[in-house]
Amino acid sequence: MANKTAGPEIERLIKLLAKLPGLGPRSARKAALTLIKRRDDLMGPLAEALNVARETITICPECGNVDTVSPCSICQQPRRDQTMIVVVEEVGDLWALERAGVIKGRYHVLGGHLSPLDGIGPEDLNIGKLVERASKAEVSEVLLALNATVEGQSTMHYVKDLLANSGVKVSEMQKGVPIGGELDYLDEGTLAAAINSRRQI
Amino acid sequence: MANKTAGPEIERLIKLLAKLPGLGPRSARKAALTLIKRRDDLMGPLAEALNVARETITICPECGNVDTVSPCSICQQPRRDQTMIVVVEEVGDLWALERAGVIKGRYHVLGGHLSPLDGIGPEDLNIGKLVERASKAEVSEVLLALNATVEGQSTMHYVKDLLANSGVKVSEMQKGVPIGGELDYLDEGTLAAAINSRRQI
Repeated sequence: MANKTAGPEIERLIKLLAKLPGLGPRSARKAALTLIKRRDDLMGPLAEALNVARETITICPECGNVDTVSPCSICQQPRRDQTMIVVVEEVGDLWALERAGVIKGRYHVLGGHLSPLDGIGPEDLNIGKLVERASKAEVSEVLLALNATVEGQSTMHYVKDLLANSGVKVSEMQKGVPIGGELDYLDEGTLAAAINSRRQI
Repeated sequence: MANKTAGPEIERLIKLLAKLPGLGPRSARKAALTLIKRRDDLMGPLAEALNVARETITICPECGNVDTVSPCSICQQPRRDQTMIVVVEEVGDLWALERAGVIKGRYHVLGGHLSPLDGIGPEDLNIGKLVERASKAEVSEVLLALNATVEGQSTMHYVKDLLANSGVKVSEMQKGVPIGGELDYLDEGTLAAAINSRRQI
């Protein structure tokens, strides 16, 4: 809801902040007031950081990652395993896997998942480039690290079928009980998956 | 946590976004990615709005409100009731009361509440100016619309004592069951207050 009492400049700031994920109208107002209170040590630097980011950040033409160098710094690392491509939905997923430090290969960011209800089809995702990359001689495995959601899984099946004749091994992440997870708090789907893929100890 | 894979420009943006209330490290990363995805219709306009706000917003020397005119547009409204000053902790509280449309008088923003544990004393709040305004001949009532929290209420008692000899009527908001509130979900303090200030129907 607009603030008639605040000037149009403040209203506009609140409206733009409310478009960020995680901020609703109320928290956008609080964020705007914080910015106004901290004009010099937060509002100014944030405006500057946005301008710098806007001018320097590009999408990697190879993998779809965001970075200030092109190709992105991951694609440029010579020691990355060239034989494996790890497919993720969003750059945030790539960051999460990098924080975990488990991926030796390179990435491919689809830019979302298939969602017919939202009108998002294969042509809206970065899939053509993936097929092209997977067909290269040095690539032997494509790991589909997509979300374990309905949309993520249906996207996974679509991509798996596309790659069926490419000669590469296609893999997915194991499903099971998360580390530290209490069974009582887990959904039935996770429990069933963890039981069905049980392993001998 | 930092994203080693993202460039320093992205890291800096995430770090600044995480300083906004309502955004933690994870949601700051999501917000940064949304901004990067929507470079032209969100990142650019937000940078611009921040710059405009930074250059135009001032604190009203009369009441402590934020606005792009000085004195603020509320203080400038000739039809506002000059006899009543409504004291609030923050500008966000002023906005909330204006949205409710219940205040005919003018405001006075303290800029916080007394909090000895955080080292916030009377000299850190906009209290001196309030006493000065309350002493003017046309002012007959000061309504202390402070939060019903421990800090808000102790600030209220402090300000009430300060104004004791000023000749103005000092009032506070009624406490009770909020409209739409279910008794089962209310705390004991609210229930006790609502019972103790019960009225005949």
